[in-house]
Amino acid sequence: LDSAAATAAQARQDVLTKPQGALGRLETLSVQIAGITGQTRPRLNNPAVIVMAADHGVARRGVSAYPSEVTSQMVLNFLNGGAAINVLARHIGARVIVVDIGVAANLPSHSELIDRKLGMGTADFSVEPAMSRAQAQQAVEIGIACAYDAIASGVDLLATGDMGIGNTTASSAVVAAITGRPVAEVTGRGAGIDDAGLARKIAVIEQALALHHPDPRDALDVLTKVGGFEIGGLAGVILGAAARRVPVVIDGFISGAAALIACTLAPSAQPFLIAALRSVERGHDAVFAHLDLTPLFDLGMRLGEGTGAVLGMSLCQAACKILDEMATFGEAGVSGKVEG
Amino acid sequence: LDSAAATAAQARQDVLTKPQGALGRLETLSVQIAGITGQTRPRLNNPAVIVMAADHGVARRGVSAYPSEVTSQMVLNFLNGGAAINVLARHIGARVIVVDIGVAANLPSHSELIDRKLGMGTADFSVEPAMSRAQAQQAVEIGIACAYDAIASGVDLLATGDMGIGNTTASSAVVAAITGRPVAEVTGRGAGIDDAGLARKIAVIEQALALHHPDPRDALDVLTKVGGFEIGGLAGVILGAAARRVPVVIDGFISGAAALIACTLAPSAQPFLIAALRSVERGHDAVFAHLDLTPLFDLGMRLGEGTGAVLGMSLCQAACKILDEMATFGEAGVSGKVEG
Repeated sequence: LDSAAATAAQARQDVLTKPQGALGRLETLSVQIAGITGQTRPRLNNPAVIVMAADHGVARRGVSAYPSEVTSQMVLNFLNGGAAINVLARHIGARVIVVDIGVAANLPSHSELIDRKLGMGTADFSVEPAMSRAQAQQAVEIGIACAYDAIASGVDLLATGDMGIGNTTASSAVVAAITGRPVAEVTGRGAGIDDAGLARKIAVIEQALALHHPDPRDALDVLTKVGGFEIGGLAGVILGAAARRVPVVIDGFISGAAALIACTLAPSAQPFLIAALRSVERGHDAVFAHLDLTPLFDLGMRLGEGTGAVLGMSLCQAACKILDEMATFGEAGVSGKVEG
Repeated sequence: LDSAAATAAQARQDVLTKPQGALGRLETLSVQIAGITGQTRPRLNNPAVIVMAADHGVARRGVSAYPSEVTSQMVLNFLNGGAAINVLARHIGARVIVVDIGVAANLPSHSELIDRKLGMGTADFSVEPAMSRAQAQQAVEIGIACAYDAIASGVDLLATGDMGIGNTTASSAVVAAITGRPVAEVTGRGAGIDDAGLARKIAVIEQALALHHPDPRDALDVLTKVGGFEIGGLAGVILGAAARRVPVVIDGFISGAAALIACTLAPSAQPFLIAALRSVERGHDAVFAHLDLTPLFDLGMRLGEGTGAVLGMSLCQAACKILDEMATFGEAGVSGKVEG
């Protein structure tokens, strides 16, 4: 981070017409964004959420409440503007960038769909690695390129979003592998599986980790053996944003798994991350603990798609506007604190 | 609440293209707003925050970190658009309606300032009642009229905001009187008073309650003896919004004290209230417990002015857009849950 810009931002926050610190996280967020961007009064006018979609071979093990075809159906819903992420992105004025990085269906070409398909979904990691190491590296590189392209087109604030039936299973496997926590502690109900399904999901992940022994210090190994194409892609988005000094707002549990991959590959990316929401999905707190992040809010959400992250982007914009637009005590002729 | 509209809204939420309940508070909020407005797909296009400003005689007892003249100085800052509430209201597209209901200074006339001054601040309630009972009733009536005027001009979503040096002291006194909690449990540092000041503040409130014996079942008695003009005015705003079936988003601790006054006067107003934020100010949780409200978020804020409430209004709008704009499973051709 640019400590000079952050220090200047903090100094300005301290003379704006409010008690010091009275806007809480909005103030610290503005200082972090100053440090990220290197600007003392950053303006974030052009937010975008990158939604990476892919399928998961492990979904055939009965680990999700929804069938795999929902992934491609929801991609079409994104392109038609009818999904939650479209509604919330319109609400805050953000672009939605949809990337097919491995959906198990031939999608129609569409001006708003970026085709970077790495395969027709991953392999079933309960019997073989989810992907090849080359594919894992490509997934991350695709994400970096998508972030760079968005930034080159003028985007100055990024968020991560995901779509992929089965991807909480892959994410829990990634989180267990990297944090070392027990699988049952980081595995939840995803889109709403019942008790029997949850027990099956935990068993499938435990068996996969026992079978593949992913190396927690080698993020590409983890991604190869138990990850997902969209998880790798979102890790790349995070790394690309950090490399370009653009703040990146992390969505829920799947994006959290991607953040673990990103920060294992490049620990210096961590200060560029802004965690939006605490998800209902069990295991999200393990991500925050490992990455030393504190989410902005908890609205009981567990949808993914970037829905929490776009609300977080609006708070980032609000924080920067406070820093930039408020009057100082001097400018407004307001008396300061009484010294006791 | 209109239970038919709320039931219809819930039924629609359950067929939108997401797992049921996956948007958490955004879903329940949309159902509440349907019940408030009586519309199955409410649209909230015209939000406004009413900021009531007044001074407090008790401020001369050294209970605040800032001098009383800051109240009038900040009103001018509001009118010039330089305060935090202006910035955040612009961010979400809300009007700021500023009401002088008892500032202890002659303010210049201004097209954006509503002059309803009930006095040059309240009396010092450590030695006499803060106001007459007639003034207390007038304060509430002024608030009701301000809400009605805003709604008549097209406002369909209201928020409460406050400005008044010394008003956390009055609010703590109101909260202690109505909830019966010990003063020390509901009294905090306000704009940032030090340890000695906090001890003084608690002692002043305890003495005032012992002197006046406000009747906790008679909200006007509480307001008369230890309240504030803006607290009464905001109670009126809440009652006026509820009477017109307009959702009203409650800001921090001072607005919480106003909500206690409003709901003691008219318990049926409670379902129309939406608590935006958990404030840092000690005592806010006592308000939530008494009114059975759960705030939407906790961003470590403690400024007042309506700053938390306007962020809450944006979430109300987001919730209603989700309900109104998302595609259903049928419309989008998305497969439903697998039945196990």
